[in-house]
Amino acid sequence: MNNVIKIAVDAMGGDGSPKKVIDGIIHHYQNNKNSFYKIFGNREEIEILIPKNINKNAFEIIHTTEIVEGTDTPLGAAKRGKNTSMWLAIDSVKNKETDVVISAGNTGALLVIAKLNLKMIDNIDKPALSALWPNKKGMSVVLDLGANIECSEKNLFDFGCMGSSLFKSLFDKDKPRVALLNIGLEENKGNEILKKTFSLFKESNLESFDFKGFIEGNHIMDGNIDVIVTDGFTGNVALKTAEGTANFITGELKKTMTGNLLGKLSTILNFYNLKKFKKRLDPRLYNGAIFIGLDSPVIKSHGGTDYIGFSNSLSVCNKIIKGNLIEKIRNNIN
Amino acid sequence: MNNVIKIAVDAMGGDGSPKKVIDGIIHHYQNNKNSFYKIFGNREEIEILIPKNINKNAFEIIHTTEIVEGTDTPLGAAKRGKNTSMWLAIDSVKNKETDVVISAGNTGALLVIAKLNLKMIDNIDKPALSALWPNKKGMSVVLDLGANIECSEKNLFDFGCMGSSLFKSLFDKDKPRVALLNIGLEENKGNEILKKTFSLFKESNLESFDFKGFIEGNHIMDGNIDVIVTDGFTGNVALKTAEGTANFITGELKKTMTGNLLGKLSTILNFYNLKKFKKRLDPRLYNGAIFIGLDSPVIKSHGGTDYIGFSNSLSVCNKIIKGNLIEKIRNNIN
Repeated sequence: MNNVIKIAVDAMGGDGSPKKVIDGIIHHYQNNKNSFYKIFGNREEIEILIPKNINKNAFEIIHTTEIVEGTDTPLGAAKRGKNTSMWLAIDSVKNKETDVVISAGNTGALLVIAKLNLKMIDNIDKPALSALWPNKKGMSVVLDLGANIECSEKNLFDFGCMGSSLFKSLFDKDKPRVALLNIGLEENKGNEILKKTFSLFKESNLESFDFKGFIEGNHIMDGNIDVIVTDGFTGNVALKTAEGTANFITGELKKTMTGNLLGKLSTILNFYNLKKFKKRLDPRLYNGAIFIGLDSPVIKSHGGTDYIGFSNSLSVCNKIIKGNLIEKIRNNIN
Repeated sequence: MNNVIKIAVDAMGGDGSPKKVIDGIIHHYQNNKNSFYKIFGNREEIEILIPKNINKNAFEIIHTTEIVEGTDTPLGAAKRGKNTSMWLAIDSVKNKETDVVISAGNTGALLVIAKLNLKMIDNIDKPALSALWPNKKGMSVVLDLGANIECSEKNLFDFGCMGSSLFKSLFDKDKPRVALLNIGLEENKGNEILKKTFSLFKESNLESFDFKGFIEGNHIMDGNIDVIVTDGFTGNVALKTAEGTANFITGELKKTMTGNLLGKLSTILNFYNLKKFKKRLDPRLYNGAIFIGLDSPVIKSHGGTDYIGFSNSLSVCNKIIKGNLIEKIRNNIN
């Protein structure tokens, strides 16, 4: 049973919880028998959601009625939160009862409570929020996406090391290609911190990844860079702008496709292809931001996703534990 | 003849120039008879591009063989550039021989040469690069898109004033809705400068626009905000990320639509609708960044656009002169 991956799940966060979370767990369990789920939340609400015919040995419920609300400020949640499902879930990973923790709840609270309870990996000054970003050839990792509004060159360099460890643990690639998000490709472009970070990467000449210099926003999705490094402010704006653009275009497309009889007819004819297209862009596929830099991985599922999206975040949990993410970060940093 | 709008055109900048530029001028002239084009560049190359049957009174060619190259550094271009088509075009707007200047050439050089030659509008500390951004309900104006990497609260506030003047001169709206791009909506979100800018807008309580607080990247295209204000670094990343996302999605869609017989068939069936969709997203429609804050407007056409795109930038020139952009900025700022 050594291969079993133990996941601490905050069952009470995000829209439609705990149902969405428990349905996600069941869906995930049916495809990953070597997982164990330690579920934190209201036992009464959770138990009725677990099908009778399922192997109960894979589940443990830790009862609490207290929860972090979506409207809590991060510090407010941290102050009153020691018995919340979120805090207890993080506590279990801290005590090594589980390998990884996941929540679809309040992002700010999750980051603050995780930072309060978990140790930083040696030589890392700031943990970062990273996520998978689809591109023409597959996926990249982008970080930071909002945990650190202002970053030093050391922080950004660390993000590059951590991001390439994450990429390796997810995709089994030897030397990920790392680049810094900037507004031009020349060495003299961008602010002072970006120029210094550029030098830091160049001088370090690390074996563990391949530093490719700067990348501009319009090339993030070309698929030629595996790890895109930026400060949390810029990363958050870029991610949300990409989301908004995708929504806008698919909305316009939908109008085109169903606006009149001819559109509807051709949509029916092209049903199979459009389904593939939709699947390729399905945000549930990329669900699961990874908070890295602490000595245990913390996964944030989108609050608005459904059980399929939550199940995909659980797969991210599995992959990074199997891929020895934390060990890879330690090796990369030292 | 007082209504004639006099446009100084650098004919030698951007890919495929001067042909693209002259074709763009002819296309524009055919739909806007009240324009006069002062064209700067190589007379020999330009003259043969102007159709014989066209009214020559609308065109004047100022001959020069010197040009700013795309590879020139901004300062390099400025130092050696006094006889280049770009410099001479800006000079003509400085000397009030023309109302507005347009180039599809080197952006950095254009900004630097414009700043060297044109006066800043009183009480504006930094000019900004702004552009039209499509949204679900029409268009918004976003600024700064790369002229100023770092901005103070005063700069951002000025951008709000200038952006709303630009929006008014383009779209004839009384009170544009202005918002600051940030990574959350609450007053305590973002960096110190954004928080201070928020207060500055709230305290100013200007009649000329409606300050709506913060906006996140995923809502830029909802169409509820007319003027989106940000520093040049963030704006440039957001714009390019949106471009990259649009390219990615339309590329995936194209694969879907033409990947197999069923796809091709349904595409033919839906030809008319897809054409409308393509037109709605055509970047040539939004071509023409507007450099504002100087006492004459400077328009930057995308270097890679074609004559239709260039012609659309010429329409932007016409609109902002008709809409009294500079006067509106002066009134808004004072």
